[in-house]
Amino acid sequence: MAGSSGEEELKLLGTWPSPFVARVELALVLKGLTYEYVKEDLASKSGLLLASNPVHQMVPVLIHNGNAVCESRVILEYIDEAFPDAGDALLPADPYRCAVARFWAAYIDDKFVASWMPALRGKTEEERAEGMKQILTAAEALEGALGGNPFFGGRAAGLVDVVLGGLIPLVRATEVLTGAAIFDAARTPLLAAWADRFGQLDAAGEVLPDVDGMVEYMKMREAAADAAAKAAAN
Amino acid sequence: MAGSSGEEELKLLGTWPSPFVARVELALVLKGLTYEYVKEDLASKSGLLLASNPVHQMVPVLIHNGNAVCESRVILEYIDEAFPDAGDALLPADPYRCAVARFWAAYIDDKFVASWMPALRGKTEEERAEGMKQILTAAEALEGALGGNPFFGGRAAGLVDVVLGGLIPLVRATEVLTGAAIFDAARTPLLAAWADRFGQLDAAGEVLPDVDGMVEYMKMREAAADAAAKAAAN
Repeated sequence: MAGSSGEEELKLLGTWPSPFVARVELALVLKGLTYEYVKEDLASKSGLLLASNPVHQMVPVLIHNGNAVCESRVILEYIDEAFPDAGDALLPADPYRCAVARFWAAYIDDKFVASWMPALRGKTEEERAEGMKQILTAAEALEGALGGNPFFGGRAAGLVDVVLGGLIPLVRATEVLTGAAIFDAARTPLLAAWADRFGQLDAAGEVLPDVDGMVEYMKMREAAADAAAKAAAN
Repeated sequence: MAGSSGEEELKLLGTWPSPFVARVELALVLKGLTYEYVKEDLASKSGLLLASNPVHQMVPVLIHNGNAVCESRVILEYIDEAFPDAGDALLPADPYRCAVARFWAAYIDDKFVASWMPALRGKTEEERAEGMKQILTAAEALEGALGGNPFFGGRAAGLVDVVLGGLIPLVRATEVLTGAAIFDAARTPLLAAWADRFGQLDAAGEVLPDVDGMVEYMKMREAAADAAAKAAAN
C-alpha cells in the first residue's frame, strides 16, 4: 500500500468501532493510500484532536500534511479530490451522477443513521417501534437507489458504498440484538445482496469490525446507558 | 442574465419565503444563470414536485434539462459543477479550502438552523432559551470562520455565503420577534458586517424576501401552530 501517497503524510484520528471512522478507512484502503491510524480515547480526548477539530471535538479527523479535515462525508470528498490519481474515484465525474451520490450519502446519515437512537434507546416501546420503522423505510429507499447495480457507485464501490458500508457491522449487530431484519433478503433483496458483496471486498475485511465484537460493544453501551439513567432517576 | 445557460433548461421548484430555496436562487443569480421559478404550494404539492423529489417531497428542486437535483446544498454544488464557466466558482479549486467550505456549510444547517425550532417553538422557556443559546454559539463559531475576510468565500461570495445569506431574512425577523441580537455588532462584529455586506449585493436585493414580510409570515406560522396545539389539547 506504499507509493501512491509518496511524500504525503496522512494521519487518521479514530476510535473503535465508529462507523464514521470506518467509512474513511474504507476509502483510504480502497484508494491504496498509506495512513497512520491514531487511536483516540473519547473519554479523554487528545490535545491533537481538540486542536484539529475544535468545533465538534469528534472523530474522524484526517490530517494531511498538517491540514485537518473534519466530518466524515467532507473527508471522503477531500480524499477523492486531494488524491485524484489514487485508485478509482469515489464520485463520478458527471455532475448529475455526482449530485445523486451526494443526495444518497446525506440521506443515509439524515434518515437511516438518525433513526438508530430512537430505535434502540427510545423512551417508550412506541418510540422504539417508530425508530425501527424509519430504519426499514430508509432501507427500502436505498434498495430503490441501488437498483440493479452491483454497487451504488456502479461497477465499483463509490461514495455511497463506503458511507453505507461503514455501517454494516452496526446493522448486523442491531439485527442480532433486536431480532429485526434490516438488510432483509425478502423485503430488500438487492440491498441484502449488496451488503454481502461489499462485505467480501478486501477493504471491508481489513477495516470493518467483526459483528461479535460490535454486539458486545453495543451491549456494554446499553448497560452503561441504563446505569446512567437509573442513577439520574435516584 | 441570458446567454450563459444557452440551450439549457433550468427550472427551480420553490416556495416563499424558504431560506433553502433562497440560497439556490442566490447561487443562480450570482452565476448569471437564467431559470424559470415554479411556485409550489406545499399544502397541495404538484405532481412535478412529487415526481422530482419522491424521497423528501420538499423544495427546492432544480430541474436541469429534465434531471431533478434535490437538497439545497447538493444543488449548490451541482450548479457549480454543471456550469463551470458561469460566473465565479462557489467552491475553491483547492481541495483543502473546498473541504473547509463544505464543513461550514454543513455546520450552518446542523447547528445554526437546527436550533431555530427549539428557540422559537420549544415547549418550555428553558428549551427556548437553550435553543437561542445554541444559535448564538453557532454565530460565534461562524465569526471565527469568517475571520478578516469580506466573505466566507474570500474576496467574493461562495458556498458558505449563499448558504448563510439565504438565512439573513429569517435571522432579522427572529431578531425583531424575540428581541435577541443574533448578528450582533458587539458580540460578532465581523459577522454583523458580513450580513450588511452580503445584503448589499445585487443578488441579495433580487432574491431575499424583505424582513417585514418575513416577520408577518412567521407571526402567521406561530398563530397557526398555537391554534393547532390548542385544538390537539381539546
